[in-house]
Amino acid sequence: MSTPSLLILPGDGIGPEVMAEVRKIVDWFGKKRDLAFDVSEDLVGGAAYDAHGAPLSDATMARAQEADAVLLGAVGGPKYDDLDFSVKPERGLLRLRKEMDLFANLRPAQCFDALADFSSLKRDVVAGLDIMIVRELTSGIYFGEPRGIVQEGNERVGVNTQRYTESEIDRVARAAFELARRRGNKVCSMEKANVMESGILWREVVTKVHAESYPDVELSHMYADAGAMQLCRAPKQFDVIVTDNLFGDILSDCAAMLTGSLGMLPSASLGAPMANGRPKALYEPVHGSAPDIAGQGKANPIACILSFAMALRYSFDKGEEADRLERAVEAVLAQGARTPDLMGPEGGAPISTTEMGDAVLDAL
Amino acid sequence: MSTPSLLILPGDGIGPEVMAEVRKIVDWFGKKRDLAFDVSEDLVGGAAYDAHGAPLSDATMARAQEADAVLLGAVGGPKYDDLDFSVKPERGLLRLRKEMDLFANLRPAQCFDALADFSSLKRDVVAGLDIMIVRELTSGIYFGEPRGIVQEGNERVGVNTQRYTESEIDRVARAAFELARRRGNKVCSMEKANVMESGILWREVVTKVHAESYPDVELSHMYADAGAMQLCRAPKQFDVIVTDNLFGDILSDCAAMLTGSLGMLPSASLGAPMANGRPKALYEPVHGSAPDIAGQGKANPIACILSFAMALRYSFDKGEEADRLERAVEAVLAQGARTPDLMGPEGGAPISTTEMGDAVLDAL
Ligand SMILES: CC(C)[C@H](C(=O)O)[C@@H](O)C(=O)O
Ligand SMILES: CC(C)[C@H](C(=O)O)[C@@H](O)C(=O)O
Repeated sequence: MSTPSLLILPGDGIGPEVMAEVRKIVDWFGKKRDLAFDVSEDLVGGAAYDAHGAPLSDATMARAQEADAVLLGAVGGPKYDDLDFSVKPERGLLRLRKEMDLFANLRPAQCFDALADFSSLKRDVVAGLDIMIVRELTSGIYFGEPRGIVQEGNERVGVNTQRYTESEIDRVARAAFELARRRGNKVCSMEKANVMESGILWREVVTKVHAESYPDVELSHMYADAGAMQLCRAPKQFDVIVTDNLFGDILSDCAAMLTGSLGMLPSASLGAPMANGRPKALYEPVHGSAPDIAGQGKANPIACILSFAMALRYSFDKGEEADRLERAVEAVLAQGARTPDLMGPEGGAPISTTEMGDAVLDAL
Repeated sequence: MSTPSLLILPGDGIGPEVMAEVRKIVDWFGKKRDLAFDVSEDLVGGAAYDAHGAPLSDATMARAQEADAVLLGAVGGPKYDDLDFSVKPERGLLRLRKEMDLFANLRPAQCFDALADFSSLKRDVVAGLDIMIVRELTSGIYFGEPRGIVQEGNERVGVNTQRYTESEIDRVARAAFELARRRGNKVCSMEKANVMESGILWREVVTKVHAESYPDVELSHMYADAGAMQLCRAPKQFDVIVTDNLFGDILSDCAAMLTGSLGMLPSASLGAPMANGRPKALYEPVHGSAPDIAGQGKANPIACILSFAMALRYSFDKGEEADRLERAVEAVLAQGARTPDLMGPEGGAPISTTEMGDAVLDAL
């Protein structure tokens, strides 16, 4: 089998800094674990706009389609705030998601024991938390037509359309049930079927997929507002949550914040299998480009490092190597290594982005 | 001036029980504070469906339009889960909101000192919390057309439409700025302008209203996903939050849960002024119909009682009487009166719905 390819898109803000640390880790796996990758880099977001006038060039898009996995840093920054909607940095990310058809966005919300006190929630509410949010990523109100700002009579109207087909719901539901089988065997599906017809169809299809193919998995349904409440009240009641693109955006960020350490959380966005059997895949940290601290060596590279661990697991079927990397991160935290975002009231001296990357390397 | 009218719609589940306690309070204000109301009762939700085959009859709708204020308990229950979408209990509530044009939904999230330990969040994160979420309530994806489940080719598609006109955004923004002036003088507006054109228009109109009419109020903007995070992380940074119907549904429930005492939270839904100068108005607790505890004397009537306090303040311009009622509730809590939902790990004997109502009466 030829060397698998990894396309790295560092993006904007802290993206390049954290990605530099990931490259060290990738190289380590090549040298020490005989897991070499054919790594290439390209531009996305504001960086791509600066170079090409578009937040993702057609050439980069084509390379992403060919890659065995794509690893993305972050996009956006105040410099690009006034750009037209169609060329904003986010559009580069959304184009990747849409054209690679990455319909299943996996967002683990895990509370690291060493960091449980960072949460704004009480320790016993979050300690040991380990939930997986599966967010539909290529449809819904993010992409539905008609959309835009149109003139009607003497005023303008902002319009977006939520659209879900049965097959779109079916495939993301299957992804969630498959994941649940390898975890706690429970899925909670969230929508607003009490007010939205798209939610009614969502609930119906999830129920059907469950009955037909996954009757062994425990399934429940919750309205998304109640889901937000329950996430804040007692998040450990959940195992896998499956929900649509917009609810998933909000609920997964809410869940991420519960853990108290946003700089720690990775994500995977998966599509259909390619000819070589691997799914189309993009991995990225949940945090943003953090322009306020960019270039200062303050960024926490762990979320991006753990995104690479997810790549090992979901793209390259190297679950044990992924475990190894995740254990290294835990060891480093247990030893007390802390970037500035992880500094608690107890104080101590923070380490830099590079030092954190090196610490993980050492632990490996 | 003639006696103001109050239409009471107890609804389903615990609605009738908690409303019975509110009636005692209303009567007390009539007798002791010379604040008599012309009170009448009617059906909404499942109760209305059982009687008339619709969750809100035209006759009740007409009475609500005439009333100086409407007080609603809660709607819904498992008995009605399989009803057709068009006659579900929720449709009664949505019809009231829409036809009375109650565009500004005020949802205070307040943390009562005596109950701060009930929150899943750390005491210092929530103690003293006092934020007001202003949710647009008559437009957006709840009501936009086209909507429905339609056949396309060989599969069905669920469709809903988010639509906001400039004037719809303008009026709810004004409501938020007006409230902020009487509170902490800060408004944070939340949308997803990075992915939705309706969010772009939202941000633009809020910015314009601010510049033209409320430059003295501090205005900030946040993406709704970041807003959910910040609500969980550091809710006290907010004063007034203004957002659309769907984001408001989720974010206000999230905020409500932070306080740790859902059974305590009221809401007001306000429309345009009527001929007598009073706004069209509906008041309701944030909690649902709680069918699991209905009829057992376990429900907490305080959210509904505080909804009446909001009616005194916003419909009848009796801010001091509202304060009086709110102080009575605080006193009762400080004395340790607890319905079952307020029982903490320290134990003790809970009191019943009626006993809680009586305790508030005594404190008055
Ligand atoms: C950057 C933005 C377009 C994106 C989204 O809304 O999906 C982000 O919030 C996310 O969750 O990945
Ligand atoms: C009952 C339901 C229709 C309603 C809504 O979604 O608006 C409720 O959740 C609320 O927030 O008042």
